[in-house]
Amino acid sequence: MDDIKRLKVHYPWIQTPLIVSAPMRLIALADMAVEVSKAGGLGFIGSGTNQTNLASDLQSAQSLLRDSDIHSSTLPIGIGFINWGAHLSTTIPLIQQYKPCAVWFFAPSTPASLQAWTEQTRHASPDTKIWIQIGSVAEAKDALAVHPDVLVIQGTDAGGHGLAQGAGITSLVPEVIDTVRTMCPNAKPGSLAQAPIFLAAGGIAESRGAAAALCLGVSGVVMGTRFLASNEANITRGYRDEIIRAADGGQTTVRTKVYDILRGTTGWAESHNARGVVNRSFVDAQGGLSETDNKRLYKVEEGKGDVGWGVEGRMTTYAGSVVGLVKEVRASADIVIEVREGAREVLRSLAEHVDKSRW
Amino acid sequence: MDDIKRLKVHYPWIQTPLIVSAPMRLIALADMAVEVSKAGGLGFIGSGTNQTNLASDLQSAQSLLRDSDIHSSTLPIGIGFINWGAHLSTTIPLIQQYKPCAVWFFAPSTPASLQAWTEQTRHASPDTKIWIQIGSVAEAKDALAVHPDVLVIQGTDAGGHGLAQGAGITSLVPEVIDTVRTMCPNAKPGSLAQAPIFLAAGGIAESRGAAAALCLGVSGVVMGTRFLASNEANITRGYRDEIIRAADGGQTTVRTKVYDILRGTTGWAESHNARGVVNRSFVDAQGGLSETDNKRLYKVEEGKGDVGWGVEGRMTTYAGSVVGLVKEVRASADIVIEVREGAREVLRSLAEHVDKSRW
Repeated sequence: MDDIKRLKVHYPWIQTPLIVSAPMRLIALADMAVEVSKAGGLGFIGSGTNQTNLASDLQSAQSLLRDSDIHSSTLPIGIGFINWGAHLSTTIPLIQQYKPCAVWFFAPSTPASLQAWTEQTRHASPDTKIWIQIGSVAEAKDALAVHPDVLVIQGTDAGGHGLAQGAGITSLVPEVIDTVRTMCPNAKPGSLAQAPIFLAAGGIAESRGAAAALCLGVSGVVMGTRFLASNEANITRGYRDEIIRAADGGQTTVRTKVYDILRGTTGWAESHNARGVVNRSFVDAQGGLSETDNKRLYKVEEGKGDVGWGVEGRMTTYAGSVVGLVKEVRASADIVIEVREGAREVLRSLAEHVDKSRW
Repeated sequence: MDDIKRLKVHYPWIQTPLIVSAPMRLIALADMAVEVSKAGGLGFIGSGTNQTNLASDLQSAQSLLRDSDIHSSTLPIGIGFINWGAHLSTTIPLIQQYKPCAVWFFAPSTPASLQAWTEQTRHASPDTKIWIQIGSVAEAKDALAVHPDVLVIQGTDAGGHGLAQGAGITSLVPEVIDTVRTMCPNAKPGSLAQAPIFLAAGGIAESRGAAAALCLGVSGVVMGTRFLASNEANITRGYRDEIIRAADGGQTTVRTKVYDILRGTTGWAESHNARGVVNRSFVDAQGGLSETDNKRLYKVEEGKGDVGWGVEGRMTTYAGSVVGLVKEVRASADIVIEVREGAREVLRSLAEHVDKSRW
């Protein structure tokens, strides 16, 4: 539980187990990040590949936090980057100015690029902690080169982008933790060789999944899909309704590059794709419709507004396989509290049965 | 926890949480099944599609159990069937004669076939409980038609055969449980409308994964890959060594039909495939090698013995994405005890931190 103590030193306002809102590009902005942190979690702005709005998003967050009772030497929200497309030189001055409590790095184009982002961030804002998202044991080993403070271990059930091939968190998380701990054998507090703090992402939308992740050895959990159905998500009604509707996500979501192709989101490495709800675009692509025709139909659908989403629609609904557990729109703060307290209750209740030998 | 009580009524020798060895075809025979049950778990013979050896396997089990201290009205092991290929008429007399404590049904060709297996089993041996393996919410709903006693919820991380599309257990298990419980609203003990007992399979090989599964709401866990590396597995040295060697299973295992094609295992529905370790056969198939040539090379490799397994080999290593957590060969009984006690300890330790507000 030393990791819990370290988390509380880094982020004195949090309650544990830590609940984090994922840095969903275009969707997770200042509102969501601030509400999550104010509820004792840690909220992220999804800055993605384009930092044009980052300064104003950070200013909004700062302004929204002005009347909060969070006391921290850093801005108590994080920023998430998709590093292959993000702009280092324009970002570093903002990190220096706003001192976010965390930066979340994902999918850098090269190890050297990750090194540059990490070093320049640490130089610009020494208290900003470096979070790195990985999706395999191999990626976790590679990430250790930059001594991350936090490793976000993303399982293949996650919505949106991640490794095309992967395992669920029950397989992935324990193996990553065992491997990394073996590679950091002389871990001492404050030492750079200290193992990172571990968080789990992918396949968690409520208290049972959060409690399960804690059993796997992490100190907290990241949720994306759950926060798509929150008051603070910057999302169309069509997208949000589809999140509420979709069920049986193992059958109705799929990992694919089709949605990136239609949306013109080029730049992702061959190793990565994204999970979204199966819709007409995907079915047509499977049926052999050409990219050109599929893109044309997508463009037409864009003009239709909210009806463009759904099984017969063509607009993209990125979501995790856990989408079937998301059944209502809630305030982000309520989600944080419900999952955190719910996870504690799941563990308390199970342990009681263990102790009373009813098990 | 009523489900735990029901399990203990059905299977008075078990200790909880229940640890089950999967009915792996050709690999899980009387030795493994008996050792697992003697250790307080529940072991299965993997009878698969071919019941030629079932009578002698059951006789072996009965003989091995003769000196055990298990007292049960049924034979305290189960039998697993792959129903699309299994022979109902020759099986029922064996069920009547040996009264296994459980039959595990999987992948029936039609709902009517599942109905026939279930009804004839119940008629032949009323105390034999009906277990049904499902891999989606849709399959779980369908299975309720035959009032299963146990639903085995298999996540896509599982090794060997299952649904080609699927979710990990953190997404799948809670949604299945919620859906099934909603469909069995008037559940009363002893009533046929009672919800089944839930178990999880896929992505569990040790105590952390088992504890995680319990948080998701199941009463016990099924492991396959972990028991491949047991003293009692009927497995070649080459296969077993490959299980111990393989790591980072999200990257090094894959769900595919290629291995079935090479082995001539026809009969599986289009909806199903199997997860195995990536080898030369798979890479060649991806590279465009014809089925005919790939089969020819497979046949040649079959003559080479244990060296036919491995990354450069062509023999099939069915395994789950959890394969990287399996690092040594153990006695099946020791695996059962270690995972069961370990899971209890994980839960006890986490709950202690919750209670002491260290969390």
